[in-house]
Amino acid sequence: MIDKFFMIRLLLTLVITYNSVANAFLLGDPLPSWNEGAAKSAILEFVSSTTDSSSKYFVPPEKRIATFDQDGTLWVEQPQVPQAVFVFNRIQELASKHPDWNKTQPFKSVLLGDNAAIAKFTKEDLEKIVMASHADMSVEEFKKLVKDWLAHAKNPHWNRPYIELVYQPMLELLALLRANGYRTYIVTGGGQAFVRVYSERVYGVPLEHVIGSALETQYKYNEQGEAVLMRAPELLINDNYAGKAEAIYLFTGSHPQAAFGNSTGDQQMLEYAQASKGMHLLMLIHHDDAEREFAYGADSKIGTFSKALMSEANQRGWHVVSMKKDWNKIFAFDK
Amino acid sequence: MIDKFFMIRLLLTLVITYNSVANAFLLGDPLPSWNEGAAKSAILEFVSSTTDSSSKYFVPPEKRIATFDQDGTLWVEQPQVPQAVFVFNRIQELASKHPDWNKTQPFKSVLLGDNAAIAKFTKEDLEKIVMASHADMSVEEFKKLVKDWLAHAKNPHWNRPYIELVYQPMLELLALLRANGYRTYIVTGGGQAFVRVYSERVYGVPLEHVIGSALETQYKYNEQGEAVLMRAPELLINDNYAGKAEAIYLFTGSHPQAAFGNSTGDQQMLEYAQASKGMHLLMLIHHDDAEREFAYGADSKIGTFSKALMSEANQRGWHVVSMKKDWNKIFAFDK
Repeated sequence: MIDKFFMIRLLLTLVITYNSVANAFLLGDPLPSWNEGAAKSAILEFVSSTTDSSSKYFVPPEKRIATFDQDGTLWVEQPQVPQAVFVFNRIQELASKHPDWNKTQPFKSVLLGDNAAIAKFTKEDLEKIVMASHADMSVEEFKKLVKDWLAHAKNPHWNRPYIELVYQPMLELLALLRANGYRTYIVTGGGQAFVRVYSERVYGVPLEHVIGSALETQYKYNEQGEAVLMRAPELLINDNYAGKAEAIYLFTGSHPQAAFGNSTGDQQMLEYAQASKGMHLLMLIHHDDAEREFAYGADSKIGTFSKALMSEANQRGWHVVSMKKDWNKIFAFDK
Repeated sequence: MIDKFFMIRLLLTLVITYNSVANAFLLGDPLPSWNEGAAKSAILEFVSSTTDSSSKYFVPPEKRIATFDQDGTLWVEQPQVPQAVFVFNRIQELASKHPDWNKTQPFKSVLLGDNAAIAKFTKEDLEKIVMASHADMSVEEFKKLVKDWLAHAKNPHWNRPYIELVYQPMLELLALLRANGYRTYIVTGGGQAFVRVYSERVYGVPLEHVIGSALETQYKYNEQGEAVLMRAPELLINDNYAGKAEAIYLFTGSHPQAAFGNSTGDQQMLEYAQASKGMHLLMLIHHDDAEREFAYGADSKIGTFSKALMSEANQRGWHVVSMKKDWNKIFAFDK
C-alpha cells in the first residue's frame, strides 16, 4: 500500500506544480477588459489575499461567497429593464383574452405604450401587471414563456438579443472569482425564475445560485397524479434594498465577502457584506459612459445611483467603477 | 507548450487511474451499516446508473440533487424532537422575565412540564412558544443560543448529546452521494437557522444546503452603523408537507433526483422528486426497531408514518427502509 500512496502523492504534487506553472503562463491577465487602475488592482489583491492560506485575510473555501446584482451590474438595463419589456410584451399578447384591459388601468397605458404614464405607475399598478403576466401558470409554463421571449426579443438601442448585452468585464470577474473557489450568486430585484432560465448559459451561474424576487408557489397534481408547482399571485421574496441582505442570509446563512451592485437597491447588500469579518471587495458600477452605453450615474437626473449612495460609497470605502475609465471593453462584441 | 500539456495529460491520466484502483481497493463497501437487501441494492444501483455517462439513466452533475428530511430521517426524534426540547428549555429560562407565563397558556403547561397538555397544543399555541423562544433577537444571538444548548442538552433515553444520535447508515448514504457528485440538501420542517448551527459538523452539509422553516428577518443597524439581521416573529417559510416541495424549488429551481423522509410531512417532497425525468431513489425510513431505537411506524398508534403513506409508498414504488432489517448498526457508537 505504501507504494501506491507514495505514487499518488508524487503524481498529485507534480500535476499541481505543472498546473500552476501552466496557468500563470497560459492565462496571463485574467481581466483583459479592465484597464489598469484602482478597481482592477483591488480585485486582484482581494483574490490573491483571500485565497492565500498564509495571508491574514485568508477566507476558507466554505466562506467564499460573492453576490452580484443583475440589472445594470451584469447586463444592460437601459432604455428599459429587460424583464419589464417581457412584462409589457406579455400584456400585449394576453390582451385579446382580456377586452376590459383597453379601458382599465394600469393595463390601458401598457397597451397604448404610454411611457409617460408607465413611468408614473404606483407599486400597486406594477404589481397588477406583474401578476397578470407572471402568475397563474405552472413553473414549467413560465420557464417556456421566458425562453421563447429571450429567443426573439431585442434591445432596440443595439438591435441585439438581451443576453448578448452582458458586460464582458463582469463575465471576466465572475470567472476569476469562481476559478478561485468563490460561489458567485446573482442577487437580483428581478424575478428569480426569470433569471434562472439563462443564468447558467449566460453567466455560468447555476440555478441554485440565483436569488431573486419570487412568487409563492402552490402544490397541485396533474391528471397523471404527478406533482406540479403553480405560480401564485403573491410575492414571497421581495429581493430589493434590505430584502437583498435578508434573502442572502436565507439562502446562504452567511455574509458575502464580495458584493457588486449599481444602485440604491444594492446599498444594503454591500453593507451586509461589509458587516462580516476580514477583507471585502465591494463595488458599485457607475454608468458614466454615454458613448458606449448610457450615462445615468450620480450626476444624472435619471437612474438609481443617488448622490446619497455615492456619498456612502466614499464614506465606507466602496469602489466606484467608472465604466468609461475602468473598462476598455463593455461587450464581448466590442472591438 | 506541447511538452507541458502532454505531461499534464499523462500525469492526470495516471493519477485518475491510480485513484480509481486505490478507491475500489481501499474503500470497499461504501455502506457497511446497511445489510444486503433491496434497499441497499437500490441505492448502489441508483448511484451507479445515474453517474455512468453511458447509462440511459445518467444524470448530469448539475442536476444531481438529493434531499433529506432531518427529524426521524437523519437523527432521533423520540421521545421528543430535539428542537422542541430546545423550545421548552428556552421558555423555562425566560420564565423569570415573564411572571405572567405561570398563569397564561400555552406557557403555563410548558413550565409545569405537562406533557399531556403539550401534546394537545394547537397550531396557535405552538406558534406562541416558538416565537417567544426564537424571535426578537439577532441571527447571531440565536446561533449562539443553539450552540450553547447543543453543548449541554442530552436525549434522556440514551443520556447522550443530540448530535451523537444521528443514524450511521444515513451518514454513509450522505457521504456516498456526495462522493458521486450529488449535492445533499437537508429539507427540514424544523428551523433552518437551528440546523445550520451543526449541519456542516454533524452531516457534512454546508449552510447553503440547509432548507428549513424560517422566520422573516429585519434589517437594522447597530451602534457602529453595521448591518444586523433581526429575527422577526413572522413565519416566512413553512417547510412541511407541500412546503417542502415549494422550498426545494425556491432554493434549487429544480427537482431532486433522490429524496429521503420518514413521515407524512415528507410525502410531497418524494412526490415532487418523482415528478422529474429519469431514475429516482425515493425512500422512507420506517421506525420499526423498538429494541435499538423506537417503534412508531405505520402499525403504531403514535408517530407520523400513516397507513395512507405506506399505501402510497407501495403504489408509487418508494422504498420503505426497515431500521430493524436493513440497518446492522443504527448509531456510530453501536457495537
